[in-house]
Amino acid sequence: MMKIGIDMMGGDFAPEQAVKGVISFCETQPQNTHLFLFGDEPKIASLLQNKTLPKEKYTIVHAPEVIEMHEHPTKALKEKQQSSIAIGFHMLATNGIDAFISAGNTGAMMVGALFSIKTIEGITRPTIGAYIPREDGSLGLLVDVGLNADCKPENLSQFATLGSLFAEHILNIPNPKVGLVNIGEEEGKGNLLAQATYPLLKENKQINFIGNIEGRDILINKADVMVCEGFTGNVLLKMAESVYDITKRRQIQDEHFDRFNFEAYGGVPVLGVAKPVIIGHGISQSSAFKNMIHIATKMISTNLTEKITSSFSNTI
Amino acid sequence: MMKIGIDMMGGDFAPEQAVKGVISFCETQPQNTHLFLFGDEPKIASLLQNKTLPKEKYTIVHAPEVIEMHEHPTKALKEKQQSSIAIGFHMLATNGIDAFISAGNTGAMMVGALFSIKTIEGITRPTIGAYIPREDGSLGLLVDVGLNADCKPENLSQFATLGSLFAEHILNIPNPKVGLVNIGEEEGKGNLLAQATYPLLKENKQINFIGNIEGRDILINKADVMVCEGFTGNVLLKMAESVYDITKRRQIQDEHFDRFNFEAYGGVPVLGVAKPVIIGHGISQSSAFKNMIHIATKMISTNLTEKITSSFSNTI
Repeated sequence: MMKIGIDMMGGDFAPEQAVKGVISFCETQPQNTHLFLFGDEPKIASLLQNKTLPKEKYTIVHAPEVIEMHEHPTKALKEKQQSSIAIGFHMLATNGIDAFISAGNTGAMMVGALFSIKTIEGITRPTIGAYIPREDGSLGLLVDVGLNADCKPENLSQFATLGSLFAEHILNIPNPKVGLVNIGEEEGKGNLLAQATYPLLKENKQINFIGNIEGRDILINKADVMVCEGFTGNVLLKMAESVYDITKRRQIQDEHFDRFNFEAYGGVPVLGVAKPVIIGHGISQSSAFKNMIHIATKMISTNLTEKITSSFSNTI
Repeated sequence: MMKIGIDMMGGDFAPEQAVKGVISFCETQPQNTHLFLFGDEPKIASLLQNKTLPKEKYTIVHAPEVIEMHEHPTKALKEKQQSSIAIGFHMLATNGIDAFISAGNTGAMMVGALFSIKTIEGITRPTIGAYIPREDGSLGLLVDVGLNADCKPENLSQFATLGSLFAEHILNIPNPKVGLVNIGEEEGKGNLLAQATYPLLKENKQINFIGNIEGRDILINKADVMVCEGFTGNVLLKMAESVYDITKRRQIQDEHFDRFNFEAYGGVPVLGVAKPVIIGHGISQSSAFKNMIHIATKMISTNLTEKITSSFSNTI
């Protein structure tokens, strides 16, 4: 039985959209899944009333406190031990649940992930990636997208391995192509970080490194995993998100650009921590919650964390 | 009389498109302009035959050699002293022309700009920006877009001043808003470079600093001058260029996205060197050449270089 925890109080439209997402997930009749819903019990129970959700599929865990979006992460986690995020991480750390999902305060989620469940041995810095829609209908992964604004070459090489394992097992891309985001195609191009990273990626036996990719290659499927530090990745991701907004404002109907609605993909996992943790957009709607629960089940059923652990134990 | 030099042999469609651009520029009946056309004289003369170009508007300067796109810049400039680029810079350095334009070998153009005409006193590193189309029809400037892959905070502050003067005098934006490209809105956010640059921009009296801007703000007119190091700027620019390609492939007709055809803007000036030098895309068509000549005339008539010189002499 997969036990998946969901912060019902996180995100701009909580708990309504979280509840809708849970219902929508359960309508897919998942086997072997039990959902733990963290939040204001009376509120959640009342929203679930008269719904066709089988009672054996979920447990509401009452969390009387909420960490708001703009609270200081460490302080809030410490002071609000009865918050949905604090209780969720406590249960994750004590094996009460196998994965934890939230669209709430990203900083608090990161602090919780790093301090309650720790980093996998051998990994210097966990990372967060983002899905990138490509014209052929597939998804690529851009990593890092903001967690690590300043990086060393070794960090980027680890992100490449983490992203590659995620792409293979969660995005179902066999032998994913890994590209280094850079400002020229040839080896030797780029800033100091990219120049120093290239040889590490070339030597990294855990990945299928295809060389440098440029800004023009991000939105096509030249590479499945696109590696950069979190500053560049974050700015690129937010620009791509804004392209979606522009197409909507200009009433452009296009199947491909509709897939630039990054909110639809749900959240992205924190890669490199010892258990599945998924962080969603603050603006997550029900479909995002549903997708995040699906990603969590996939991370559990494919043993992604174990695969990452074993990959890094080989390299130490 | 403004004397503008054009490398007729530079770019993928030289000299045909360069000749067409020259003709098209002259059709706008510019006053006080004389064009110096550097290149293979018989070829250029034959292309100009039977055209309605008044002979007093131009002088062909024969350059029997051509620096090809993939030649090593320093070596090629040294060995091909009879090339259009070498002759162009020689004439620029000796006041035979007031501005020099080429869509040829970018590296050779940079080497020529830095070594034949030098950097303006006080400027540590010249920079190259790119126009960014905004939804309201205006153009912003993203600077740097690849010339300086690794930067210090002082470099970014100088780029801000240079970009601001360009935006004010060439893009006609009074008191242009300068934004620092970053991964968060508040002061203190970002990577080490952005964190250290913020206070310098705040103190920079030559600019109207509005604070941090994020990836989502690049394509709207939140800031007129968007400052970052050349790695991020280059990757952003090339992603934006690729959005245009995607809209074309998907047969999306949209006035705004049509303006993402960066080639149409012609070239961008090298900001910070002692005379107007404009470098075009290798794929420049006639309209790009025409636009580059226009930008050159504007740089000369607004005394942009003198304004930059005086701005930096105040800060020393």
